[in-house]
Amino acid sequence: MNDFTFHSPTEFIFGRGVEQRAGECMVRCGCRKVLLISGGGSARRSGLLGRVERSLADAGVACVALEGIRPNPTDDKVREGIRLGRLAGTDGLLAVGGGSVIDTAKAIAAGLRYDGDFWDFFAGRATVADALPVGVVLTIPAAGSEGSGNSVITLASTRQKLSLRTPYALRPRFALMNPELTLTLPTWQTACGITDMLAHIMERYFTNTPATTVTDRVGEGLMRAIVEEGRRVAARPDDYDARANLMWAGTLAHNGLCGTGCEEDWASHFMEHEVSALYDVSHGAGLAVIFPAWLQWMAAHHAAKVAQWAERVWDVAPGPSAEAEALEGVRRFRAFLAEIGMPLTFSQLGIAAPDIAALVDGLHRNKGEHVGNYVRLTRCDTEEIFRLAL
Amino acid sequence: MNDFTFHSPTEFIFGRGVEQRAGECMVRCGCRKVLLISGGGSARRSGLLGRVERSLADAGVACVALEGIRPNPTDDKVREGIRLGRLAGTDGLLAVGGGSVIDTAKAIAAGLRYDGDFWDFFAGRATVADALPVGVVLTIPAAGSEGSGNSVITLASTRQKLSLRTPYALRPRFALMNPELTLTLPTWQTACGITDMLAHIMERYFTNTPATTVTDRVGEGLMRAIVEEGRRVAARPDDYDARANLMWAGTLAHNGLCGTGCEEDWASHFMEHEVSALYDVSHGAGLAVIFPAWLQWMAAHHAAKVAQWAERVWDVAPGPSAEAEALEGVRRFRAFLAEIGMPLTFSQLGIAAPDIAALVDGLHRNKGEHVGNYVRLTRCDTEEIFRLAL
Repeated sequence: MNDFTFHSPTEFIFGRGVEQRAGECMVRCGCRKVLLISGGGSARRSGLLGRVERSLADAGVACVALEGIRPNPTDDKVREGIRLGRLAGTDGLLAVGGGSVIDTAKAIAAGLRYDGDFWDFFAGRATVADALPVGVVLTIPAAGSEGSGNSVITLASTRQKLSLRTPYALRPRFALMNPELTLTLPTWQTACGITDMLAHIMERYFTNTPATTVTDRVGEGLMRAIVEEGRRVAARPDDYDARANLMWAGTLAHNGLCGTGCEEDWASHFMEHEVSALYDVSHGAGLAVIFPAWLQWMAAHHAAKVAQWAERVWDVAPGPSAEAEALEGVRRFRAFLAEIGMPLTFSQLGIAAPDIAALVDGLHRNKGEHVGNYVRLTRCDTEEIFRLAL
Repeated sequence: MNDFTFHSPTEFIFGRGVEQRAGECMVRCGCRKVLLISGGGSARRSGLLGRVERSLADAGVACVALEGIRPNPTDDKVREGIRLGRLAGTDGLLAVGGGSVIDTAKAIAAGLRYDGDFWDFFAGRATVADALPVGVVLTIPAAGSEGSGNSVITLASTRQKLSLRTPYALRPRFALMNPELTLTLPTWQTACGITDMLAHIMERYFTNTPATTVTDRVGEGLMRAIVEEGRRVAARPDDYDARANLMWAGTLAHNGLCGTGCEEDWASHFMEHEVSALYDVSHGAGLAVIFPAWLQWMAAHHAAKVAQWAERVWDVAPGPSAEAEALEGVRRFRAFLAEIGMPLTFSQLGIAAPDIAALVDGLHRNKGEHVGNYVRLTRCDTEEIFRLAL
C-alpha cells in the first residue's frame, strides 16, 4: 500500500428536491454574485433552471447565466465565462448539469483568479493555487466531476483534449444531488454514464501496488452495485432507488476513494480522450469500445489483477489459467455493455475506419512515450489495443 | 434509499513518517497555541510525542500538554483541558492517540467555545455551534474518531457514558495516519480495534431501508477486507501492509460512508456502553460479547439482512431458511472473534455475574423505551440479548 492523501471536502446533499437549497448553499460559501452555468437547454425546458434561479433570488444571490455548454466542452466557452464573470464581478460558480458543465465551471473558477490564459493550467505551464468556489446541481451521473478536483477541456483550434488534476483547489464546495432529475435521462446517456463510472473505478483498480485490500474491496463492491443497478435502470428507467444508487456510485467512483494507496493507470481514459477529441463521440461510449480492448490485451500480457476482477466482480470461477479467467471476465463485461446498449467496436461507435496512426500519435504527443502504469504501454502496444477495438 | 448528507472534510494524510507534518498542518488550520493531548504514556516513551513536539516547535507553534487520558475517558480530564486551554489561550487541539484521546480533544474543543458546562452537549441540553480546530495523530485504529464528528465521554460521578454526534463541527481538520505507529500494538488492543471497526459498519448495515445497494456493497467489501487483514495481522503483527489496511478501514468504517441513505441501528453500541460504563471493560471487547448476541437474537426475529450478511461477508451458502443462514453467519463471526483473541461471553470478559437488571435500566434510562431501529428493542428484548451473552 502506497502513502496517500485523501481529502474530499465536498458536502454531498442527496435526495428529493435538494436543488432548492442552491441559494442557501451559495450564501454559506460566501457568494452573492454567481455565474450560473448550464448545458444544452433541457435544464431550462424542464423547469430545473427556473427553480434554481428562484432559490438563488430567494437567498439574495444575483446571477448571470452562461448556457449552451456542450459535451466534450471547449475552451471558447471557458473564455466566454471568464469574460462574463469579470464583467459581472462574479464571486462564485454554480454548475447545473453533468461533467461537461461542471468541468467548464471549474476551468472558469480557476481562470477568474488568474491573470494569464487559463489554458496554462491544462498545458502544464501553471498550477492552480486558488479558484472561486464552485457549487453543483447534478443532472447526469457519470463523470464524477461533482466530487473530483479534475476538469477536462478540449482546445477547439487543435482538438487537443487535456485533463487538469488538482488535489483540492477545484473540488466543488457542495453538490446537490436529486436522483429525480435523472429519471428521464435517455437510455443512451444513462448507459454512457454507467460505463464512465465503471471505468473510473477500473483505472484505479488495475494497479501493481501490492496489498491494496481495502481499496480493492471497496472498488469491487461499487462495481457490483453499478452492474446490478445498471441492469435495474435498463429494465425500469423511472426506478428512483436504482437511479439514486447509480448517482451515488458515480460520485464515489471518482472522488479518490477508489484509488487510495494505489498507483493508478488511466491509459484507457487517455486513449479514449484521443477518440472523442478526433471524432466528437460520447466519452462513455468511447470507453465502452476502448476499455474492453485494453483488458483483452492485458489478459494476454499481465492477467493477474484482471483475473481477480473477473472472479470478484463477474463471478467467474477460478479456471485453469489467469488468462482464461481474465478473458471470461472481459467477455462478461462486454456482454453487460451490449445489454445496456453500448457499442463495443469502432464501427458500432460510428467510426468505420478510424485513423489509428493519428490516434496513436496524438496520444503519445500528449502523454509521452509510455502511457499507463499497470503496463507502461509503448506506441506498438497502444496501436495493438486500438486495433483490438476495430 | 433515504435522503442524506455526506460531508467528510477531514484531510487524511496517510503513510510512513506523516506525524512529522503535525506542525505544518496546525499552522494551515490557523493555530499557533496548541493543546497537545495524549494517553497513558506509551506515546511519550516511544518518542512519538517528542517528534510531534519538535514538529510543532519547528513550525513556530507553542504547545501545552495534557497527558494521561485513559480508556473510557471521563469528564474530569475534559474539564482539566478546558481550564488549561483557557489559561494558555489555546487556539487549536492536537490529539495524539486513539479514540479516547481524540474524543477528549473534541469535547475540550467544543467546551472552549462555550460559556456553559461542556456536559450540556452530551446531555442534549445544547448543540455544538462552534469548536476549535482539532487535528489528530492516530496511534490506535479502532474508534474511527479521526474521521467522525462524534465523541463519547463518561460522567465519572454517575458512570453515565454518553455519545455526542455532530454532523460537522467536531470533525477533525486533519488526521495524520502512520501505520508504522501501530506495528507494536498489543494483540488485545489490535483485536479490540478490529471488533470496533466491524461493529461500526454493522450498526449501519443492519437497516430496513430498502435498496441501499451501493452502501451495502461498500460495507460488505470493507468487512471482508477487515476480516482478511485482521487474520494477517494476527499471524504477523509487524506486517506493515496489513496494519495499513486495518488503519484505513477503521476510518472508512466510521466517517459516515457506510451509512449513506440508511436508517442506522446502534443498539449494540448503546448496550455495550452500559457494560463498559458499569464494568470499565474495553469497548471493543464488550462489543465482541454483545454484537453476536444481538445478531443471534435477530436471526430468530428478523433474519433477512443477517442472512445477506452471512452470504456476502462470511460466504455462507444459501440454505433452507434465512434463520439457518443467519445463524451460520453468526457462528463464523464468533469463530473469527475467538481466533483473534476476543471474549465471546460476559464470563470470558471477566464479568462472572453481570447485573443485567442494572444494564437494562441504564440503557433505557439513557436511550428511551425503544433502542435501535433494525428491530426497535423493548426492555424484554434487550434483557434477552444480554442473557444470550452470558
